[in-house]
Amino acid sequence: MKAYDVSQSEKTWDVSQSEKTWKDECGVFAIWNHPDSAKLTYLGLYAQQHRGQESCGIVTLHQKQHIIHKGLGLVGDVFNDKNLSLLTGSAAIGHVRYSTTGQNLIGNAQPLTSNLLNGPVAVAHNGNIVNQSILREALQREGSIFQGTNDTEILLHLMARNPSNDLLTAFTESAEQLVGAYSFVVMSEDRILAARDPLGFRPLVLGQLVSDLGMSYVIASESCAFDLIGAEYVREIEPGEILEISKSGLKTKKMNIDQSLYSQKQAPCVFEHVYFSRPDSNVFGMSVYESRKKFGEQLAIESGVDADLVIPIPDSGIAAALGFSQKSGIPFEFGIIRNHYVGRTFIQPAQAIRDFGVRVKLNAQANVLKGKKVIVIDDSLVRGTTSQKIILLLKQAGATEVHMRIASPPTIGPCYYGVDTPEKSQLIASHQSIDEIKNFIGADSLSYLSLEGMFKALSRSPKTFCSACFSGEYPTSLKGVVKKEKTEITV
Amino acid sequence: MKAYDVSQSEKTWDVSQSEKTWKDECGVFAIWNHPDSAKLTYLGLYAQQHRGQESCGIVTLHQKQHIIHKGLGLVGDVFNDKNLSLLTGSAAIGHVRYSTTGQNLIGNAQPLTSNLLNGPVAVAHNGNIVNQSILREALQREGSIFQGTNDTEILLHLMARNPSNDLLTAFTESAEQLVGAYSFVVMSEDRILAARDPLGFRPLVLGQLVSDLGMSYVIASESCAFDLIGAEYVREIEPGEILEISKSGLKTKKMNIDQSLYSQKQAPCVFEHVYFSRPDSNVFGMSVYESRKKFGEQLAIESGVDADLVIPIPDSGIAAALGFSQKSGIPFEFGIIRNHYVGRTFIQPAQAIRDFGVRVKLNAQANVLKGKKVIVIDDSLVRGTTSQKIILLLKQAGATEVHMRIASPPTIGPCYYGVDTPEKSQLIASHQSIDEIKNFIGADSLSYLSLEGMFKALSRSPKTFCSACFSGEYPTSLKGVVKKEKTEITV
Amino acid sequence: MKAYDVSQSEKTWDVSQSEKTWKDECGVFAIWNHPDSAKLTYLGLYAQQHRGQESCGIVTLHQKQHIIHKGLGLVGDVFNDKNLSLLTGSAAIGHVRYSTTGQNLIGNAQPLTSNLLNGPVAVAHNGNIVNQSILREALQREGSIFQGTNDTEILLHLMARNPSNDLLTAFTESAEQLVGAYSFVVMSEDRILAARDPLGFRPLVLGQLVSDLGMSYVIASESCAFDLIGAEYVREIEPGEILEISKSGLKTKKMNIDQSLYSQKQAPCVFEHVYFSRPDSNVFGMSVYESRKKFGEQLAIESGVDADLVIPIPDSGIAAALGFSQKSGIPFEFGIIRNHYVGRTFIQPAQAIRDFGVRVKLNAQANVLKGKKVIVIDDSLVRGTTSQKIILLLKQAGATEVHMRIASPPTIGPCYYGVDTPEKSQLIASHQSIDEIKNFIGADSLSYLSLEGMFKALSRSPKTFCSACFSGEYPTSLKGVVKKEKTEITV
Amino acid sequence: MKAYDVSQSEKTWDVSQSEKTWKDECGVFAIWNHPDSAKLTYLGLYAQQHRGQESCGIVTLHQKQHIIHKGLGLVGDVFNDKNLSLLTGSAAIGHVRYSTTGQNLIGNAQPLTSNLLNGPVAVAHNGNIVNQSILREALQREGSIFQGTNDTEILLHLMARNPSNDLLTAFTESAEQLVGAYSFVVMSEDRILAARDPLGFRPLVLGQLVSDLGMSYVIASESCAFDLIGAEYVREIEPGEILEISKSGLKTKKMNIDQSLYSQKQAPCVFEHVYFSRPDSNVFGMSVYESRKKFGEQLAIESGVDADLVIPIPDSGIAAALGFSQKSGIPFEFGIIRNHYVGRTFIQPAQAIRDFGVRVKLNAQANVLKGKKVIVIDDSLVRGTTSQKIILLLKQAGATEVHMRIASPPTIGPCYYGVDTPEKSQLIASHQSIDEIKNFIGADSLSYLSLEGMFKALSRSPKTFCSACFSGEYPTSLKGVVKKEKTEITV
Repeated sequence: MKAYDVSQSEKTWDVSQSEKTWKDECGVFAIWNHPDSAKLTYLGLYAQQHRGQESCGIVTLHQKQHIIHKGLGLVGDVFNDKNLSLLTGSAAIGHVRYSTTGQNLIGNAQPLTSNLLNGPVAVAHNGNIVNQSILREALQREGSIFQGTNDTEILLHLMARNPSNDLLTAFTESAEQLVGAYSFVVMSEDRILAARDPLGFRPLVLGQLVSDLGMSYVIASESCAFDLIGAEYVREIEPGEILEISKSGLKTKKMNIDQSLYSQKQAPCVFEHVYFSRPDSNVFGMSVYESRKKFGEQLAIESGVDADLVIPIPDSGIAAALGFSQKSGIPFEFGIIRNHYVGRTFIQPAQAIRDFGVRVKLNAQANVLKGKKVIVIDDSLVRGTTSQKIILLLKQAGATEVHMRIASPPTIGPCYYGVDTPEKSQLIASHQSIDEIKNFIGADSLSYLSLEGMFKALSRSPKTFCSACFSGEYPTSLKGVVKKEKTEITV
Repeated sequence: MKAYDVSQSEKTWDVSQSEKTWKDECGVFAIWNHPDSAKLTYLGLYAQQHRGQESCGIVTLHQKQHIIHKGLGLVGDVFNDKNLSLLTGSAAIGHVRYSTTGQNLIGNAQPLTSNLLNGPVAVAHNGNIVNQSILREALQREGSIFQGTNDTEILLHLMARNPSNDLLTAFTESAEQLVGAYSFVVMSEDRILAARDPLGFRPLVLGQLVSDLGMSYVIASESCAFDLIGAEYVREIEPGEILEISKSGLKTKKMNIDQSLYSQKQAPCVFEHVYFSRPDSNVFGMSVYESRKKFGEQLAIESGVDADLVIPIPDSGIAAALGFSQKSGIPFEFGIIRNHYVGRTFIQPAQAIRDFGVRVKLNAQANVLKGKKVIVIDDSLVRGTTSQKIILLLKQAGATEVHMRIASPPTIGPCYYGVDTPEKSQLIASHQSIDEIKNFIGADSLSYLSLEGMFKALSRSPKTFCSACFSGEYPTSLKGVVKKEKTEITV
Repeated sequence: MKAYDVSQSEKTWDVSQSEKTWKDECGVFAIWNHPDSAKLTYLGLYAQQHRGQESCGIVTLHQKQHIIHKGLGLVGDVFNDKNLSLLTGSAAIGHVRYSTTGQNLIGNAQPLTSNLLNGPVAVAHNGNIVNQSILREALQREGSIFQGTNDTEILLHLMARNPSNDLLTAFTESAEQLVGAYSFVVMSEDRILAARDPLGFRPLVLGQLVSDLGMSYVIASESCAFDLIGAEYVREIEPGEILEISKSGLKTKKMNIDQSLYSQKQAPCVFEHVYFSRPDSNVFGMSVYESRKKFGEQLAIESGVDADLVIPIPDSGIAAALGFSQKSGIPFEFGIIRNHYVGRTFIQPAQAIRDFGVRVKLNAQANVLKGKKVIVIDDSLVRGTTSQKIILLLKQAGATEVHMRIASPPTIGPCYYGVDTPEKSQLIASHQSIDEIKNFIGADSLSYLSLEGMFKALSRSPKTFCSACFSGEYPTSLKGVVKKEKTEITV
Repeated sequence: MKAYDVSQSEKTWDVSQSEKTWKDECGVFAIWNHPDSAKLTYLGLYAQQHRGQESCGIVTLHQKQHIIHKGLGLVGDVFNDKNLSLLTGSAAIGHVRYSTTGQNLIGNAQPLTSNLLNGPVAVAHNGNIVNQSILREALQREGSIFQGTNDTEILLHLMARNPSNDLLTAFTESAEQLVGAYSFVVMSEDRILAARDPLGFRPLVLGQLVSDLGMSYVIASESCAFDLIGAEYVREIEPGEILEISKSGLKTKKMNIDQSLYSQKQAPCVFEHVYFSRPDSNVFGMSVYESRKKFGEQLAIESGVDADLVIPIPDSGIAAALGFSQKSGIPFEFGIIRNHYVGRTFIQPAQAIRDFGVRVKLNAQANVLKGKKVIVIDDSLVRGTTSQKIILLLKQAGATEVHMRIASPPTIGPCYYGVDTPEKSQLIASHQSIDEIKNFIGADSLSYLSLEGMFKALSRSPKTFCSACFSGEYPTSLKGVVKKEKTEITV
C-alpha cells in the first residue's frame, strides 16, 4: 500500500532503500528503581537507535499509573526536556522500532499499552511471532479487537483472556502459546518482566546501575546501552527465561516448551554479529567487533587475492576489512568516504544524477584508488544493486581491479524471526551462482565467507545459532507464517 | 490527573474554563456515493465545529479498505490539501469531538476504527452511554482490551463478539444492549449505518446531494452541515431507528426496546435548542434561532422590568435578547463587544489583570452603557462566576442598573446524556435560591425562564423532551453511571 | 508575483480574498515602565489583532539592549509563554501588520530594528509614506541598502544619516521629510517616541496604567487595547505631535510642516469609523459603534424602503443595521449567520460548490427569510462580487425582495494612506452607476449613504476628515506615489 | 548574552561544546547556467554540510529577480521539495554557515541579499574580515544601517556606496578595502562573481558540469561538492583573483594589493588540512586524506613509542592514525566506537553521568583495550578537557598505558581568519608546557607533530601557508580586530 505513504508523494529519493542492505529490527530497554527512569530510558534507547529509527516510545510507572509518550522518528526528535520531565516515576520501559510486521503507524509504535482488569500493562517487543496469523484469527473469532497490525498485540490479548490474577502466570501461559522470536519487556502497575523466547533468537541482557540513589536493575537488547548510562553488565536473560523484577527483587522462571516445534536447543541470530548489533556491544556473550574482525580474517584465509589495498564499505564493512588486512598483510585504506550528515531522504535533480543514491552517502577517493588493485569488503550482499554502483564508483575513481569479498555466506533465505529481509526472489544468491553475481556487480572477483568458516570464526558449532538466512534451515515450525491483509491505512 | 496535562505546565489561562458555560459535545457526518467524499466530510465537520474542538477525524472507504486521518485540534488545523487528497474513496464518515468521557488523547479521537473478522469497522458517536461501566467490566472479564477510556469502544467490542456475519444484525443486537444517548454513524467495507438511541437524545439528520456526479446520501448531527455543501434536508433519523445505506439503497430498521428502562417515549435534548446547536440549524424539526427568540419573548412576558436597553452576552444570548427586545419594546444594543480573534489559551501577566478571563473575550462599551438601566440576556447560568464578572464590567462601564435574565430555567441537575456539565455541587441553582444567586452575581434583579414557559415557547409538552438538567427527571435508568478510573496518561 | 507565494501552490481557497471588503492595515502598541512589558504588549496587540493578521512582533528594552521576537501569523500563534518570558525589560513596543506596502515576508515584519551609531532603534509604523519612492531612490543613490520592501525602513535610513546625537531631534528632522500617513512608535536604548503625521490620518492614543507596581504610560492605535489591560484613556496624540517618554517623563513637540503639501489642516481617516476600528474603540475622540449606528440611522432617513426585516451582513454591517432598524422601525433580525470558526483558507471539493467562498462564512436562514422583503445592510461595497453572492443566498433562502443599503458613500478612489484598497479599476462605483451596480449584484434596490449624510452623522464638516476614497480629493501632495518593483522574493 | 538563547533555557547538554575541538566555518556554492540550479546547489551545500550546520540558504536568479530561501538548521531540514521547486532560475548561489562573527540568527543567515540601485545583489562569504570594526564604524558614521552583526554586510555597504555602475568594478574596489580572509560568491541580476582574498586563506574551486542540457560552471569551497553532482574539477580560484561568470563566459581580474598589510605572498589555511575539510576533498591542490595520513606518518617518525595498538579518536583522528600505524607497524584498531545517530543536544539525567558529553558520542571497547598499551591519535588538542575524558574512558576500559599523539603542532594562537577558536587563555598549549598538558589529560606520554614536521609532511615551505594558530605569526595586519558589542537579541 505504498500509494498511501505520504512521503512517497514527494519526489524524494529514499537513501535507505538502496544503500542499506538489511533493515534493522527493534530495541528494548527497561529500568527498575531509579528516580530518573525516563531520562535513563531515553539514553538507553538513544544508544540502541541503530536497531530502529521509525518510531520510539517510553512508558513510566508512577503511583501505579502508566505515563506514556510515543512518536514517529528518532529518539532525539520524539523526546525533549518537556515531555521527559512529565514522564515521572521510578520504573520505565522503552522501545525503538523498525517495523518488521505492521506499517509505520503511530498506532503500531511501542511500548503497546492497555488497561486490563488488574490494571495497566505495557509491552515492548523485539522479534517476530511466527504463528501470529493462527493466534490472531482465533482471538478475533472470540471477539478480540485488534487496533493495529502489530504481532505484539497478540500477547496482550492472550494475557487479557488469561484467568490468572498473577502477572507472571498470565504472561508465562500466554508466551508459551507463541512460536517464534521474541525478547519482551513488560511493565504492570507494580513490576517489570523480561523474557526471551525458548531458542533465544534476539538478545536481551541484564545490568545493574549503582549510584548514590541506590541500586537499579536495567534490561536492554544490547550492552552498549549500559555503557552510556554507566551501568554494569550482569548476564544474558537465558533462552526461555522469564525474569520478574519487583520490590521483592529478582525472580526467575523457565517456560514450558513443546520441543516438537523446535529443531534446535537454542538459536541466537548470527546476523546480530554479521550486521545488526553495534560493534561495541557484547551479544550472546561475545564481542561483535571481534566477531567481525574474525570473519574478515577467515575470509582472507579462504579467499585471499593479490591486491594493493583492502578497503571497507563504510561503516558496515570496516571491522571485517581490518581483520582481512591484518591477516593478509595488504594495507587497509579508506578508499570510500562516508558522509555522516546524510538524512533519510534526498531531493533529486530533475535530470537524475547517475548512482545518486550511493553518491549521496559515499564518495570514492581517486587519490587513494588510482591505478590500484583493491579488495572491497562488505558485511553481506542482498540484491547486489548497491554493490554494482559502488564498484562502478571505484573503477571511475581509477581502481584497476576490484575484488569483492563478503564477510558472511550467501543469503539465500528470508528471515521469519524479526529481520526485515526482502522476498526470496530478491535475494540474488538464492537464484544466481557466485559467478553470475560477480558479473552482475561488475567485480573482477567475488568471494563469500563459507558457512563453516563463519562458525569457525565464532568458535561455535552450527546448531548453536540460527543461520537460516544462510543455510535455509529454520529452527522452528513455520506454521502460520503468512502475509497479513491490510484493512485500514492512516495518513 | 491534571498534573500530567502538558498544557497545564505553562502558565496560561484557559479561556474556555470560565467564560463558556457549557462544553459542547460531538458532531458526526457521513456521506455515501460521492467521489470527493473526504473533502465534503471535511466541510461537513467544519460546519459543525462548534460541537467539538478537541479532536477530529475522517475515515474513507476505498476498495473495501479504510483510510484514516485523525488529529487533535480544529478541522482546519488537522486537515490539509495533502492529507485530504490521500483520503480517497466514495464514502466517508467523520467526527468532531469534545470529550464527555475519556481524556483528550489522540487515542480517543474518533472515528474509532477496528479490524473485525469480517473486515474494517469505523464508528463515530455523539452521546453518552449510561450503563458503560457495567458493559465495560463484563467485556474486560471476557478478555476484551480497551485502548482508550472512550465509551464508544464498547459498541465495537459488542459487535466483535456478536456471532452474526451481518453488519446490521450485529450492530442492532449490540446497540440494544446500550442504555443512554447516542447518535452513531458506522462504516464497514461496503455500507454505512446511521442510528439514534431509542429516546433520540441527540440529533441526526438525513440529506441528499444531487450533482452532475449522481446522487449522494449525507448524514449529519445538524442541518447546517448540509447548507454548506449544498445538500438538501430530507428528514430526521427517528429515535430508535437504524438506517443502512449501501449499493442497494436505503433500508430502515427499528430497535427492540426494553421499555422498563425508560420513563418517556422520546427525549430529544432541549439544551440543543437552548445552547448547543447552531442558530441556523434545524434541530428536531424546529429552527434553533426561532426557539431562542421565543425563549426571549417568553422571558419578557414572564419577567419584564423597566430598563433603557436590552443587551445580549454575545454570542450565546443574542437571539433571546432580540426576542426579549421585540416583545418588550426596549431597544436592543450591543453593550458588550466580543473579540473573535480569541484563541483557546492566553498568557497572563505576572500581576493578574482583574477579570482577565472575561475581558479577553468581552469588552463593555461605556458609550452605550453609561447612565443606563440595562437588561442583560444570557442563554443559561451554571456556576455564576462569569455572570458576576460581566455584571461588574457593565457597572464599571457606567450601567446604573443591571437586570440579569436567563433564557432557560435554573440548571439543577448534571447531564448523563452527552453534555459535559459540572458536578451538581457546582451548579449554583442546585443549592442557592434565585435571590441568593442574584446577590452572588451582583445583579439588581435576576429571573430565569420558567420550565413551563420554555415548553410553551417550544409549543411542546414536557414529556416530549429531555429536560433533566432543569427538572432533575431523567428519562432512562441510570444504572451504571459512575466515574471512570484513569490508569494511563499520554503526554 | 503571486506565483511565488507558497500558499498559492495548494489548491486552497482564500476566504479573505472574496468576502472581506477591505484589508486591515496595522496596529501599534508601546508601554513604558512596567516590569511585565512584553506580556502587556502581547495583550495590547491581541486586542488590536483586527488591524493586522499577517505578522506581529515585540521588542523589549532590557539594560539598554533590545530583545526581539517577530513572526508570521496571529499574535496567539507567534507568542508563547517561553518566548514572552525571554522578552524581559520594562519597556516595549509591538506591532501587528497587514502589508500595505511590501510583501508578507518575515523580513518585513515589524517592529523594524537597527543598530545605529548611538545604539539600537526599533520602529513600529501604521500608515503609508506617499513620497517613499523619491526618498528611497535618493537614499539608495547615497549608498543606503534596503533590506525589505517596506516604507518604514526609510525612516531608519533618514535617522541613521541625521547628524544629531539626540533621538528626538533626529526623529523629528527625519519625519519632517516624510509626506503621507503615519503613526509611529519608536524605541531607543532609553526612551520611547510616539508620533502622528501632520494631518493625523491614523489614530494613536495615550493611556496610563496605574498599579501597585507604579505608573506606566501606554500608547496604542485604538483604545480597546487599554480596556483589556485595565489602562485608562488619557488623550489622542495630536496630528503633527511627537511625544517623548523617558525617565524624565513626558515631553511633547510639534513638527514643522510645509503647508504647501497639504490641502487640509487635519485628515483623520473616516474609514476607521466606517470599517477598520473595533466598534468598542474610541477613535479620533468618537465611539466607533455610535458612528456606525448613526450611519445606519442616516441611511434610513435617506433611503428608507418598505420591508419586513432589516438584516446585517455580519459582522461589519451589524451596528449600522441596528441604527437603520431603530430609525425606520423595521424589525432587526439575523437572517445571515456567520461561522466564527472560519480559518484563513479552505480546501475546496474538486467540483466547486457554488458561492463556496461566501457559504463557508455565512449561512442564510430560510426560517427567517422565507417570504420576506428584506433590507440588507453592509458597511461598504468594493467590487460587488461578494454582495452578488450574498443576495443570491438570500433569494435562495426565500427572500422575496432584497434591498441593499450601504452605510457609506460609493468608493471611487484608491487609498494612498495605508489602506489596502484595490486598483481604481476594481472599485465598481468608480465606473458604474448605482443602477448598474444594483443590476450587477441582483438587488431589488440599492442605495449608499451620501457623503453629506456621512458627515452629518458624524456631526463634523468634510475638511476635518480624509474621505478621499469616497470623494477622490486627496489632502496631501501625491508626488512619488508609484508601484514598487519587486526584485527579490523569499519562499 | 547566552541567557537569551532559547535553547539554553532547557536543561540540555550541547555535545558540540565539549567534544568537538574546532568549530567549522562556512561553505559556499554557486552554479551558472543550469535549469535545475537550486537542487544542484542544495546538493552542493549538503556535500559541504561539515563546514557549517547553523544555518543555510539558497538564492536563485530568475528573470533578473532573486528568489530566496534561508533557514536555521541543516540543509536537509531547511530545504524540501516544495521550497526547492519554488526556487526557479538557471543560476544560484548558496551558503552553509557556522557563525564566526555574529550570533546564530536568521538575520545573519547567508546569502545576504540586498536591493541596490542597479538591482539585486546577493553575497555568500567564507572567512573573516579583520578590519571590520574600522570599516563598520566609518560606514555607520556615514549613515549605513547594519541589519545584523555579520561582517559580510560590510561588503554590501561598500558596494552600495561605490559610484560605479559596473558590478565587477564596484566589487573589486570594495573588496580591496577589506583586510582578512574571504572567499566570496556574489550574484547580481545577470552574473556571478567568485573571489578569494589576496592571500587565499579559504579554499574556493571552479568546476564544470557537462550534461545533455549544456555546460554549467560551478564554484565551491571544496571539491567534494563537485563529486556528488558529477561535476569536473577545473582549478582553484587564485588568491586575489576575481572571476566573473556571465553570458559572455568567464572573465578574470586581479585585485590591487597594498603589500604593506601582508607579510606573506599567500597564506592558505593549514588547518583546512588538519581538521576542517572533508578527507575526500582536494584543497589547495592537495588531497586532504593524504595530508592527514602523512601527518600521522611524520608523527610516528618524530615520536614513536612502544605499544600494542594505534587507535584513532573517531572521526577526526582516523587518517592520521592509519598513517601512524602503517609507518610504525603497530596495529590499527577501533578501540573507540562513535555513535553517528548523535544529535546536537542531549537531555541529561538529573544526577549527571560522569563524562556524559564524551560518552554520548564515543564508547571505549574493553574487548579491544583490556591489558593493552595504546597510542591514541587526534588531529589537534585545544582545551584538553575532552582528551582528559577520553583517556579516562580508555583506562576504565582496561588500557594499561595511553600515549596521546596529536597530528598537528600545539595550538597557541587564536584565529582571526574565519576559524572559531577559543580565546588564547583557553588554548591550553599557550600557557602550559607539554609535560603539564600530559599530566592534565592523564596520558602516559604526549607528543605533538612539530611545525617543521607538518610542513615536511605537506612538502611545502612555511611561508606558503597560514599557520598562525601554531606559530603565532599572523600574515596580515591585525588592525581593527575587536570584539563586537551586541545591541539586540532575537528570541
